[in-house]
Amino acid sequence: MPVPTPNLYPDFNIVRLSHVEYAVRDIMASRAFYIDTLGLQITHETNDTLYMRALEERGHHCIRLVKSVTPQANVLGFKLFDEDDLEKAAAFFAKKGLPVAWAENDFMGKTLRTRDPWGIPLEFYVQMDRLPHIHQQYNLYKGVRPLRIDHFNMFSSNVDESVGFYNEIGFRTTEYTEDEQSKKLWAAWMHRKGGVHDVAFTNGKGPRLHHTAFWVPNPLAIIDLLDLMATTGYVDNIERGPGRHGISNAFFLYILDPDGHRIEIYSSDYQTIDPDHEPIKWGLKDPQRQTLWGAAAPRSWFEHGTVFEGTDVLEPALSAQPIIAR
Amino acid sequence: MPVPTPNLYPDFNIVRLSHVEYAVRDIMASRAFYIDTLGLQITHETNDTLYMRALEERGHHCIRLVKSVTPQANVLGFKLFDEDDLEKAAAFFAKKGLPVAWAENDFMGKTLRTRDPWGIPLEFYVQMDRLPHIHQQYNLYKGVRPLRIDHFNMFSSNVDESVGFYNEIGFRTTEYTEDEQSKKLWAAWMHRKGGVHDVAFTNGKGPRLHHTAFWVPNPLAIIDLLDLMATTGYVDNIERGPGRHGISNAFFLYILDPDGHRIEIYSSDYQTIDPDHEPIKWGLKDPQRQTLWGAAAPRSWFEHGTVFEGTDVLEPALSAQPIIAR
Amino acid sequence: MPVPTPNLYPDFNIVRLSHVEYAVRDIMASRAFYIDTLGLQITHETNDTLYMRALEERGHHCIRLVKSVTPQANVLGFKLFDEDDLEKAAAFFAKKGLPVAWAENDFMGKTLRTRDPWGIPLEFYVQMDRLPHIHQQYNLYKGVRPLRIDHFNMFSSNVDESVGFYNEIGFRTTEYTEDEQSKKLWAAWMHRKGGVHDVAFTNGKGPRLHHTAFWVPNPLAIIDLLDLMATTGYVDNIERGPGRHGISNAFFLYILDPDGHRIEIYSSDYQTIDPDHEPIKWGLKDPQRQTLWGAAAPRSWFEHGTVFEGTDVLEPALSAQPIIAR
Amino acid sequence: MPVPTPNLYPDFNIVRLSHVEYAVRDIMASRAFYIDTLGLQITHETNDTLYMRALEERGHHCIRLVKSVTPQANVLGFKLFDEDDLEKAAAFFAKKGLPVAWAENDFMGKTLRTRDPWGIPLEFYVQMDRLPHIHQQYNLYKGVRPLRIDHFNMFSSNVDESVGFYNEIGFRTTEYTEDEQSKKLWAAWMHRKGGVHDVAFTNGKGPRLHHTAFWVPNPLAIIDLLDLMATTGYVDNIERGPGRHGISNAFFLYILDPDGHRIEIYSSDYQTIDPDHEPIKWGLKDPQRQTLWGAAAPRSWFEHGTVFEGTDVLEPALSAQPIIAR
Repeated sequence: MPVPTPNLYPDFNIVRLSHVEYAVRDIMASRAFYIDTLGLQITHETNDTLYMRALEERGHHCIRLVKSVTPQANVLGFKLFDEDDLEKAAAFFAKKGLPVAWAENDFMGKTLRTRDPWGIPLEFYVQMDRLPHIHQQYNLYKGVRPLRIDHFNMFSSNVDESVGFYNEIGFRTTEYTEDEQSKKLWAAWMHRKGGVHDVAFTNGKGPRLHHTAFWVPNPLAIIDLLDLMATTGYVDNIERGPGRHGISNAFFLYILDPDGHRIEIYSSDYQTIDPDHEPIKWGLKDPQRQTLWGAAAPRSWFEHGTVFEGTDVLEPALSAQPIIAR
Repeated sequence: MPVPTPNLYPDFNIVRLSHVEYAVRDIMASRAFYIDTLGLQITHETNDTLYMRALEERGHHCIRLVKSVTPQANVLGFKLFDEDDLEKAAAFFAKKGLPVAWAENDFMGKTLRTRDPWGIPLEFYVQMDRLPHIHQQYNLYKGVRPLRIDHFNMFSSNVDESVGFYNEIGFRTTEYTEDEQSKKLWAAWMHRKGGVHDVAFTNGKGPRLHHTAFWVPNPLAIIDLLDLMATTGYVDNIERGPGRHGISNAFFLYILDPDGHRIEIYSSDYQTIDPDHEPIKWGLKDPQRQTLWGAAAPRSWFEHGTVFEGTDVLEPALSAQPIIAR
Repeated sequence: MPVPTPNLYPDFNIVRLSHVEYAVRDIMASRAFYIDTLGLQITHETNDTLYMRALEERGHHCIRLVKSVTPQANVLGFKLFDEDDLEKAAAFFAKKGLPVAWAENDFMGKTLRTRDPWGIPLEFYVQMDRLPHIHQQYNLYKGVRPLRIDHFNMFSSNVDESVGFYNEIGFRTTEYTEDEQSKKLWAAWMHRKGGVHDVAFTNGKGPRLHHTAFWVPNPLAIIDLLDLMATTGYVDNIERGPGRHGISNAFFLYILDPDGHRIEIYSSDYQTIDPDHEPIKWGLKDPQRQTLWGAAAPRSWFEHGTVFEGTDVLEPALSAQPIIAR
Repeated sequence: MPVPTPNLYPDFNIVRLSHVEYAVRDIMASRAFYIDTLGLQITHETNDTLYMRALEERGHHCIRLVKSVTPQANVLGFKLFDEDDLEKAAAFFAKKGLPVAWAENDFMGKTLRTRDPWGIPLEFYVQMDRLPHIHQQYNLYKGVRPLRIDHFNMFSSNVDESVGFYNEIGFRTTEYTEDEQSKKLWAAWMHRKGGVHDVAFTNGKGPRLHHTAFWVPNPLAIIDLLDLMATTGYVDNIERGPGRHGISNAFFLYILDPDGHRIEIYSSDYQTIDPDHEPIKWGLKDPQRQTLWGAAAPRSWFEHGTVFEGTDVLEPALSAQPIIAR
């Protein structure tokens, strides 16, 4: 099945991915990881919650943690362009027979709470509290110097269908992997904000959240993080990398937080803003699509993910996940 | 005068700045500068012209040079979102009493040729020839490793009015400098594509083109270019930098091409895509707005610019250009 | 067996490692690898030989290649301080019953040709042709920007004895790995020139040359080389890395030349010049000694090496080479 | 006058420069500068003193501060190879009619206290307290990540004579600037430890200490320091740079501590260990010798320096210090 034609005029205008809420078992352990090690900035905290932003963000938070007995991803948040878009989004999801509710979130204005057809919990909003800019307070730059949230990556039990749905709401495909035999999509990267992706989907037991990514200024920040994690008790939280992705051309590192939520540190993909930007096709058997330099990803990277709140996980449409080694 | 409220629904949808055409006196001298030294890629050349793109661009060119006896800037190009936008743009400029013509450019589809109210020659198009991607042909990466065109910066004889006009066609202000006494704008940075700017205006004899900027991956690429220029006969073409801008927070270098056209090498500004992104205000007397680290710019940087084709240059509204030194 | 006390007053004064001669099967294939890809500079070439230097070296060559049907390492070269040292070295080796001959090498003055007790072919010299400096000809900087040869690493069938011999001729141990059970040395790093090592020995079938290393300015040069190799047909020549060594603290990459000679790209170890510089001890079971970040080396890295000319390879003293994975 | 022939067999063996003692007016202000901003590590402190080391150093300190009403440089320290060298050094200075005394310094063994012929206070020692290595405690890496002390640079009233004296005690010249007219030395860089210099002398009112330099891992560490200083109240302490020196080829930054003691941040010069390493000659009129990229140094950089304890300052032999601008 080919990649669908981009929908340049979707029913509502999504500006970008915005934030994720994770359930974690130990707020202080998460704080040590996200604040003291990665270098995210606290914007609000209680005994049971932790709100954070990255260094160039002015919205109140890009990640919030809530204490829970079971780690999971509670919701993925997206920012809409204008108030009208909120109503149009509600109408769109209602028409699809998907749940529509209005959430009362701290630090955010009116917020639509819904799910995608596979049950991934989503929230859309226009207005979040805006904070003073701190990107030139260089004494705050620590750890990996996270500048902004970059994307979500999800396991999907049917990538063709996931891509179809997210294309309908305006996400445009920039790169994709096709199973040479079945001609079905193995994976796809889709954007709103002009980079390689705001969301990506990979064939696997889904829906599950594979990772949330943060943008950092350059590869040396990633090397600094590796040195720091390796010598402060986090060596076993380093899962894969550093390396250059074939897909996206970004420099990357994958790490696991104390609850096993996977975080990607990501730098230097490219601008995709042109509406006639042609997606790049990769073959499933090309070992350089995952790591341009040829190194294989570990098995855990293909299998482990975070379950979404209230969502059943299905077997994937395509089988035989290949672990590609040189 | 305050910065105007962003016009979120302009008459036509500009995606981004796209390209510049410079008149140069010696194509081979320019080729040595742009191709052999900066590392731009030739996409077409004749005895009298040179077309180039940067490494991640898929459009045919971001800069074209035409041989001429007098150096000048012939036109600034912008990409529109859809065919409808081309008609809407023509109607908008016609209604303003500005010239409207349809250009026949090589390698481009239908192209609107017009001018802004001060005579700056502009062209708008939807479709340019698309080329195969080369961003992973790393043997092509040379010089400063230019990835894409980033912005134009212009002298304006009346920054408040320039900002008013460009705001009307959808450019949103991200940062600005206000003259503390007159409360008039000294300079402003305005974007379409989600960075700090596609266009900027600074008080001065105008309209003139102050510089065209290219985005590079990190500060080390800029240091590499400095080392290369300093030892290949271009030391006198280094005008200012390297440094960190206060405004934009970008790492920068200013150089002059063989005809005196100023090129900025630019890296690492920040994402501004939110429609409620608040502009940052700087005072004219703040020496860190130009260089965060405090170094003064040379006099030439405040005075020298490239004249636009067929356009009269006016005296600036604000006088006493301050050369700020620590 | 403990690391021996440094011999601060050896019989003769070795300044530093200097050069290696490799036998290769196809000079043009090696030229494409070393010159076009790594960025070493040709200083002399014939149909059957290729001499190269790195960018800050003034000696005529740090590596010479000679065409042969069988790949091997023909000799390791070291520079002595003064003419007297050459005679003293000859006397030392003669007294040990090791071969002593005077070689006639092109581009070098009087050269002592000998072998260590395990048969590793060595040559010592004082004077090599000096070339004009090119370290500020930045148009020559290509590939990984190799600045100088840094060290040799060898498999030894008896590391304790190898360390004893090289200590006697003045190499001082900076770091070492001890087998916790037998208390024997598994590996040791030994220097003359003030870095972590000029030579290193690791337990294994030996003597064989594990790798020759080149110093590069920073980790980004290594990332550039990876991008280049991955997209110019050399992806299968990337063996291990990039990463940070625990031992030496250097940023590293291991690659294989067209004949399987292993080259390390190496950056940023530390100064060890003090005569009372204490060596650092590592345990054989510590997975971070090889890669601080925890990633395991591939099996080939533990097993593959280059045979020395005219030398028998013996089984190692210690068995059970551990391939350490996290 | 030509550069003297290197003295390969001086009377005593200096390993390297080791440490400096500065008199400062406010220990807490200095602590904020050296510890909190530069990132040096405290090894001992009292109300009136502060001892520091850089991240890869194992000697107890490379810089010590003592509270005083008048800022000055109290002494420059050098490490000798062996106990014999201490006696030989004492004999050498005594024979020259220079003062010889044995200091009782905390954290150091037997220490010879003397002066050079112009009165610069020097101390020589073999043994300083050795501390555990911390170079892999990456949570300590802050500020500019200083790795080790690199060199001292001094104003000399007669550079030819200074070079003659330091050559006699074994410092070898790597680069020098000659006054084209008088054929006298304007400046010279001299080493013991295998880099471009441990000491340098420049024509000027002397003797005075121009600066002490620290080695950092790469140019990005210097950019990080500039960003930090520019936004934490130290913008006026940034004096010159960043840039690439012509002489030494190093990437540099000059800053001033709260008492006006100048510190250079220095990275990436080259190895000079060969005894036949030929010095590089520069002309006084070559503007690229100071900054390869052509930028002029500010007047303060040519005029300001730190007075040595108990030493008279003389007018320079050569007049008309040129401030070279492009």
